[in-house]
Amino acid sequence: MNAPTAVQHLIPEVNQREVPPALIAELKAHFGERCSTALVVREQHGRDESAYTTVPPPAAVVFAECTDDVAQTVRMAAAHRVPIIPFGVGTSLEGHLLAVQGGISIDMGRMNKVLSINAEDLTVTVQAGVTRKQLNEEVKSTGLFFPIDPGADATIGGMSATRASGTNAVRYGTMRENVLGLEVVTASGEVIRTGTRARKSSAGYDLTRLMVGSEGTLGVITEITVKLYPLPEAVSAATCSFPSIEAAVRTTIQIIQMGIPIARVELIDANAVRMVNAHSKLSLPEQPMLLMEFHGSPASVKEQAETVQEIATEHEGHAFEWATTPEERTRLWTARHNTYFAGIQSRPSCRAISTDTCVPISRLADCLLDSVAEVDASGIPYFLVGHVGDGNFHFGYLIDPNSDHERATAEDLNNQLVARALALEGTCTGEHGIGLHKMDFLVTEAGVGAVAMMRTIKHALDPHNIMNPGKVFLY
Amino acid sequence: MNAPTAVQHLIPEVNQREVPPALIAELKAHFGERCSTALVVREQHGRDESAYTTVPPPAAVVFAECTDDVAQTVRMAAAHRVPIIPFGVGTSLEGHLLAVQGGISIDMGRMNKVLSINAEDLTVTVQAGVTRKQLNEEVKSTGLFFPIDPGADATIGGMSATRASGTNAVRYGTMRENVLGLEVVTASGEVIRTGTRARKSSAGYDLTRLMVGSEGTLGVITEITVKLYPLPEAVSAATCSFPSIEAAVRTTIQIIQMGIPIARVELIDANAVRMVNAHSKLSLPEQPMLLMEFHGSPASVKEQAETVQEIATEHEGHAFEWATTPEERTRLWTARHNTYFAGIQSRPSCRAISTDTCVPISRLADCLLDSVAEVDASGIPYFLVGHVGDGNFHFGYLIDPNSDHERATAEDLNNQLVARALALEGTCTGEHGIGLHKMDFLVTEAGVGAVAMMRTIKHALDPHNIMNPGKVFLY
Repeated sequence: MNAPTAVQHLIPEVNQREVPPALIAELKAHFGERCSTALVVREQHGRDESAYTTVPPPAAVVFAECTDDVAQTVRMAAAHRVPIIPFGVGTSLEGHLLAVQGGISIDMGRMNKVLSINAEDLTVTVQAGVTRKQLNEEVKSTGLFFPIDPGADATIGGMSATRASGTNAVRYGTMRENVLGLEVVTASGEVIRTGTRARKSSAGYDLTRLMVGSEGTLGVITEITVKLYPLPEAVSAATCSFPSIEAAVRTTIQIIQMGIPIARVELIDANAVRMVNAHSKLSLPEQPMLLMEFHGSPASVKEQAETVQEIATEHEGHAFEWATTPEERTRLWTARHNTYFAGIQSRPSCRAISTDTCVPISRLADCLLDSVAEVDASGIPYFLVGHVGDGNFHFGYLIDPNSDHERATAEDLNNQLVARALALEGTCTGEHGIGLHKMDFLVTEAGVGAVAMMRTIKHALDPHNIMNPGKVFLY
Repeated sequence: MNAPTAVQHLIPEVNQREVPPALIAELKAHFGERCSTALVVREQHGRDESAYTTVPPPAAVVFAECTDDVAQTVRMAAAHRVPIIPFGVGTSLEGHLLAVQGGISIDMGRMNKVLSINAEDLTVTVQAGVTRKQLNEEVKSTGLFFPIDPGADATIGGMSATRASGTNAVRYGTMRENVLGLEVVTASGEVIRTGTRARKSSAGYDLTRLMVGSEGTLGVITEITVKLYPLPEAVSAATCSFPSIEAAVRTTIQIIQMGIPIARVELIDANAVRMVNAHSKLSLPEQPMLLMEFHGSPASVKEQAETVQEIATEHEGHAFEWATTPEERTRLWTARHNTYFAGIQSRPSCRAISTDTCVPISRLADCLLDSVAEVDASGIPYFLVGHVGDGNFHFGYLIDPNSDHERATAEDLNNQLVARALALEGTCTGEHGIGLHKMDFLVTEAGVGAVAMMRTIKHALDPHNIMNPGKVFLY
């Protein structure tokens, strides 16, 4: 899908370790056709949706069908000190799936069973390869839903590994708050369980949350128990335009501060609206816009919506559109859903490089306004969308992938953005993870001491550095 | 406060390490009067609210006034391989504060400053010795509050270390969900920071949540950034009596399943009501009772309350009392707040031994009914209270502390209760922690492999086992 481009220099360590033919032979003997060394299969598993594409693919791909398959693969690889890279559906944006040190990719896609739905407890246990849309389809009849919605239809395993979130996090939290327990294959190929189905616990170290967000570097997540939520009795959505990004952000701050349990509050900047208008033949006001959604009882949704409209109007919000039926809501959310594609299509042959900073909401306007000015000055086309209730936003820099100058400019812009977010007590990544791209940022953000502690944990739990090596930090 | 009793056998390891006089001399030279070796001070810091009382006290107590004091103490102790035990206000229920391997207690009580309130972001950063009531007092003028409320007025540091919760967790979560970041002194005396003020992040391993609930065994928590919430516009409380515990639990399950954002839902059994009636000269119906609280807009609170009353009535709930003014609410909550003291006073010279299991809510009735039958059969007086919206409950076994038989019976009852909770996919501790008492339970609950992983982390981060040693697990 992605044409190879000159991004090699961005990858901090490409240090291909040898994968001995004996290991491949053992894997093939054990897994038969479920261990593939076909180039097309390996290439498909050696890339993701990030800009990294020139790394050699993994030496083989094992299609796991059960936890024991994963454990067996890890044990075989461990015996040869060969890296293991778990693969869900390949939607990482930060190079998590690339075999930068060589090794074996474990495709989790066939581990796609919903194992048990416990509707009374609002929990469900799934295999790691279940995608979020599949999960919601399978629990629909219970009247419950799983709210975490990264843009892609990612796997629950991958979402756990990157501590993903999305548009509903302002109300329902991220994977951090919604994973109750895990089954994990450790670096030695042992199977452990973390957490229970109890909603809270003070029993020992929180291994669940240590694994959530560890990006495959501490173990392979094979099963996940997550929280579900009752489908709201009523849902209402709204769009509202603002004269400035600041007015939209000020509105958001006030909504959050008043404790209004808003389910979604997304910012779309004027560029993105313009691109969506062109792409979808719409005529939305080409101004910064908030897209909001309210969940609750009919009366509560109505009350929330009225209060929010009052707040927005105080900040010169206008051109309200309301929607309560699913069809109307879909129409309103089209702008948000289509932003990425509308952006890509706004410039022929471009690629979007996505930023992912997140700051305390009081610093959001400062962070956004200065960064917008910088991108405007750079001449790089872009769009801006944000989960602004959480202080998280994404610039999509629309660069010509063949222009080293534009790549470098985008890098510079992102560097400046991250530096600004960190100075404002924020984080370099709200939901995409560190992967290959943000290791330096992690050190700046967390400090040498905290990263040293992370590395100490990594060394202790993965002494031969075989679990997705070269991601998060160099060993 | 606690008379010494014959509980020595309950402590898994009392292995006093030598505290060299040279270390005491160094501490005294550095801290002057802020390092005390007075017996009364040491004894006060060598116990908590658990039943463990016969362990020798720590060799000295350092009264820290800043993070550097903590770091300095840890570095001095580390040089001599001497244990460090952080002390907040001494309200642990599981022996966390006892110097089972000797060592130095660090009293965090003077680190009681609220460092920065960020009302727009709904966050506050405090020193570890700030108590929850002090915190709420200091943020009151902002219109925000901190909801986590263990029974005692514990410190935010201690609450973080034990992953505490309380009656509001059903709506607002536990310390796990509410700590955004920490400052921690590591086992080598280094100061690190975990997390940022951003509400979400995917930046590296979740050291914040590794430290939250680590019971002082991985580092000393010195500063904490927590989430705040807007004080609800309206609050309404209610009590409701039920013919059986099962009816009260079924009501709770339905409330949660319908997604009603109830702020508190507490169970008090008939014994507890009887004890409270005697203690406070009340005449509440001596039946299982739910105490509930609703937060939101006036209309939303009214709607929640009406829906809950309908649900409760379906389950034969009756004798509703409603309260909307603070004074009326206080009256209704008196029963809950006085349970512990009413229980203690119901039997002269008794002590209450508190259990802390937590199960998925669908298993709660099973777990409670069988356990109630067991306690009834044992003849030990008891009361039962529960944060039933979370599936967490506490039996208070009211034993004669001088009766080995009653102690052993209470131990047996708790063993049976924990075994049952684990069989029902629950946890041995919802909010009190493992401490000295539940190490065996932790292994049963988490499994040998997961505990081995915890121990590997402990060994890596605290290679000389000086951070609150002998708690959570033996090294």
